[in-house]
Amino acid sequence: MIDKEGLAAWLRLTLIPGIGGETQRKLLAAFGLPEAVFAAGRLAARSVIGDRADLLFDFDPSEAVDRGLAWACQPGQRLLTLADTAYPRSLLEIPDPPSILYVRGNPDLLQNRGLAIVGSRNATPQGLQTAETFARALATKGLEIVSGLALGIDAAAHRGALATEGATVAVIGTGADRVYPARNKELAVAIAEQGTIVSEFPLGTPAIAANFPRRNRIISGLVRGVLVVEAALESGSLITARLAAEQGREVFAIPGSVHSPVARGCHKLIKQGAKLVETAQDILEELGSHSGVPGVPGIPEDTAMAGNSDILQALGYDPCPLDDLVDRTGIGADLLLGELLTLELNGLIAALPGNRYQRLA
Amino acid sequence: MIDKEGLAAWLRLTLIPGIGGETQRKLLAAFGLPEAVFAAGRLAARSVIGDRADLLFDFDPSEAVDRGLAWACQPGQRLLTLADTAYPRSLLEIPDPPSILYVRGNPDLLQNRGLAIVGSRNATPQGLQTAETFARALATKGLEIVSGLALGIDAAAHRGALATEGATVAVIGTGADRVYPARNKELAVAIAEQGTIVSEFPLGTPAIAANFPRRNRIISGLVRGVLVVEAALESGSLITARLAAEQGREVFAIPGSVHSPVARGCHKLIKQGAKLVETAQDILEELGSHSGVPGVPGIPEDTAMAGNSDILQALGYDPCPLDDLVDRTGIGADLLLGELLTLELNGLIAALPGNRYQRLA
Repeated sequence: MIDKEGLAAWLRLTLIPGIGGETQRKLLAAFGLPEAVFAAGRLAARSVIGDRADLLFDFDPSEAVDRGLAWACQPGQRLLTLADTAYPRSLLEIPDPPSILYVRGNPDLLQNRGLAIVGSRNATPQGLQTAETFARALATKGLEIVSGLALGIDAAAHRGALATEGATVAVIGTGADRVYPARNKELAVAIAEQGTIVSEFPLGTPAIAANFPRRNRIISGLVRGVLVVEAALESGSLITARLAAEQGREVFAIPGSVHSPVARGCHKLIKQGAKLVETAQDILEELGSHSGVPGVPGIPEDTAMAGNSDILQALGYDPCPLDDLVDRTGIGADLLLGELLTLELNGLIAALPGNRYQRLA
Repeated sequence: MIDKEGLAAWLRLTLIPGIGGETQRKLLAAFGLPEAVFAAGRLAARSVIGDRADLLFDFDPSEAVDRGLAWACQPGQRLLTLADTAYPRSLLEIPDPPSILYVRGNPDLLQNRGLAIVGSRNATPQGLQTAETFARALATKGLEIVSGLALGIDAAAHRGALATEGATVAVIGTGADRVYPARNKELAVAIAEQGTIVSEFPLGTPAIAANFPRRNRIISGLVRGVLVVEAALESGSLITARLAAEQGREVFAIPGSVHSPVARGCHKLIKQGAKLVETAQDILEELGSHSGVPGVPGIPEDTAMAGNSDILQALGYDPCPLDDLVDRTGIGADLLLGELLTLELNGLIAALPGNRYQRLA
């Protein structure tokens, strides 16, 4: 099934130190596939990239190539090259698409253009809750949630999407065979099962500071918009937002108290033109107003409105299990969950542990 | 000194029920001064405003006129008509300037184009502090603070300006001889002494709901920009902001938590194009970038910066009396106070009771 020779040449091209993405693309533009690059030989390669062509022929990454091929043979693991039809189309639009992607989980999810939710590792409890609630609500509406598997906002966003039937993609800054930070190991396992983990870095690449900002262009590249939940000034999230704007993606930011250091990054973005977002609905409206969001259904506004006040009525101000609410309202659990999220986002109800809900307003 | 006859005619014209501002302006446009309106007679007036002209001659407000004249003879009280050179020039730009203004305190302050600070009557403690801190900082920099003498944000803004040598103007929705709400009586006395209270409503006019939104056009009309600190949706502050935008004034709003009902109005404004504001400096920069702010000095950026880190160094993390800080830094108390406000606004220090300060960051 897999063209092992061809894939080996892709790995070889991308595993030679000193041959970066831009150089790779120059060679591919000149010769076609990586196999053709190596077949063309040293002199021909020199005419395209100068003396660095020697690296291509003097450096033998065959051990790493074999490791990559073996990795890609494992179930649930796959390599996607620029030439692969399964390579994410959205990344072909950005100026510096990775030549190869290491994918764990479902590669099809990389074709959905969802929403990135990113933010501070040092988020407030409120910020974490906001990230998770937005992710849940938007994943329920069919938006795929992309983030970076960092602590804080990233992890909360992935968790929110996992809590629904929705999809989530983690774009990581280490090799795809590693998890950083270690504290997110369980989360990474869950994402690989229900969603997708993707990395452009060679297997075994540890956490290197410089790789994370570079990784951010893939987060923004994969999506139609980036939501920044909490971010300090000079933070990686602002880099992602900048890259998103440069790539023509929407940028959304959630405001906060002017006394909160992790609101400053969001406020800076809003001053620069990012859309201030208060509810998940704000994002759906904005993305919906452009080319259609795939899978954003479907509940007509009126029905939802009528449903909401019925649900509030049925809920009351005491904690109420979801099942009771299904009985009281006669609304199916799936539809009800979506409505409850909307109510929660609007601050009208609280979601309590054990699938219980309580009316607040 | 005062042209009693002329002033009496102005009062008469504006005290006849059924003859509103627009009708008054039509008559003035046709005949010149109010004396000329009445001298022209019923038939001539009918040719301009139709049957309503009869009201001018059938209704005798002489008792109220006398009351107005007597009021204006008291020290610290004055009537300003559209024909008066002391009438605020900024209001001549708006489409519906009041024909007459009842002024307590210093009428000259009405010529300064300062900043309105408005917001919710049901503000949070944090919101009140923000309003007061901004008012103090901006008044210190020479901006006059205009507001509506309501409870909550309005009162905090007036108080902040009064706490400095700065000027403040209260545009009220009752007659100038009344104070509403009663709880702001002391504040009103202080404003009349140090600043200005102004109303377009006849003496004795009680608090009538409809008059307050109408009053808001004067608040926005007097200033170069309106800052909304905390506001619910559908609040009077949003009316003021809308009027400000229509009048070509700047609109500023302070963001807050998406879970705070009194942040929603501000967020709505930002979505509509109001400038998101985090610090007093944001406002100074914005107003400074247009026609010069009168009296915004003067501390060169570098000096201020150098001063700030020196001050933080000298302050330390324990509460420190202002006088000690003067000794430690060698900076004069006046300059120091301005710098301390900037630091406070930036969340770097806290102002404690008893003129003490503490470093936070």
